[in-house]
Amino acid sequence: MKTLEAQVITSEDLLKHWQGHRALTRRLIEIFPEKDFFEFSIGGMRTFSKLVDELLAIAVPGLKGIVTKETAPFSEGTEKLIFKAQYLEKWDEATVEIDKYWQELSVEDFSETFNLFGQYEFPVIQNILYFIDNEVHHRGQAYVYLRALNIEPPFFWER
Amino acid sequence: MKTLEAQVITSEDLLKHWQGHRALTRRLIEIFPEKDFFEFSIGGMRTFSKLVDELLAIAVPGLKGIVTKETAPFSEGTEKLIFKAQYLEKWDEATVEIDKYWQELSVEDFSETFNLFGQYEFPVIQNILYFIDNEVHHRGQAYVYLRALNIEPPFFWER
Repeated sequence: MKTLEAQVITSEDLLKHWQGHRALTRRLIEIFPEKDFFEFSIGGMRTFSKLVDELLAIAVPGLKGIVTKETAPFSEGTEKLIFKAQYLEKWDEATVEIDKYWQELSVEDFSETFNLFGQYEFPVIQNILYFIDNEVHHRGQAYVYLRALNIEPPFFWER
Repeated sequence: MKTLEAQVITSEDLLKHWQGHRALTRRLIEIFPEKDFFEFSIGGMRTFSKLVDELLAIAVPGLKGIVTKETAPFSEGTEKLIFKAQYLEKWDEATVEIDKYWQELSVEDFSETFNLFGQYEFPVIQNILYFIDNEVHHRGQAYVYLRALNIEPPFFWER
């Protein structure tokens, strides 16, 4: 499905970009103290575990929906995880699933409109950029949580 | 410089995506109380005004460097701004400049390697994605500051 025409970004590089961000988010999960991962928050915001619930509920289900054209509704935290190790396991499973579903996307697919979760009708590229931006956004919050806990977060540019 | 070949994302759409994020960041600057914009922080992090100094020092100088192939070093906060209104004015000037310089980029340019600020040697697309991600990251921090100040931030998906 590759084209030899110049691309602003290739499909492979966009996947690499996303997975790079996901690798950094994984490091933040690792760095969080077990208790704080589930309990710490600022200003009534969600804990980092809740934010990660959302990220997990978006990434594979969203990409799978795009690839299979299924518009199953958004569903978060269906499985209650109580240890960081379980989150890391889910995260790694998602990494493999994302790589797998991504191979189904052709260059043409990115400009197709898809009704994500039966609710967000946008071109596929916009939905995927939203997945990434939303993760960077919430992870930025987690950086503040770590700093407030007096823990040095990893460099933002480490992927 | 447009191609009729399918694109994962077109140059125009990537610009729109970035400017959409910049519009949201601008709203956060607007929403911050004047005093807190310059003084509030959590866990020893930079104030939002300092983070915006960085964003301003990256966006236009970075893009200008890419377009003109000048590798001038990174330089932040050369002009000391003391009111939010000055930041908003600079922000709007940058919006126009970004639109202007962006028109100089061809599809082929995005995969060219450029030594940004004479220091970060990467393909142009990676540098530009870094500009955007870095903004989303720091703005995510500003969301926590607002919540800690008991101020409702705008929805993340508003652009």
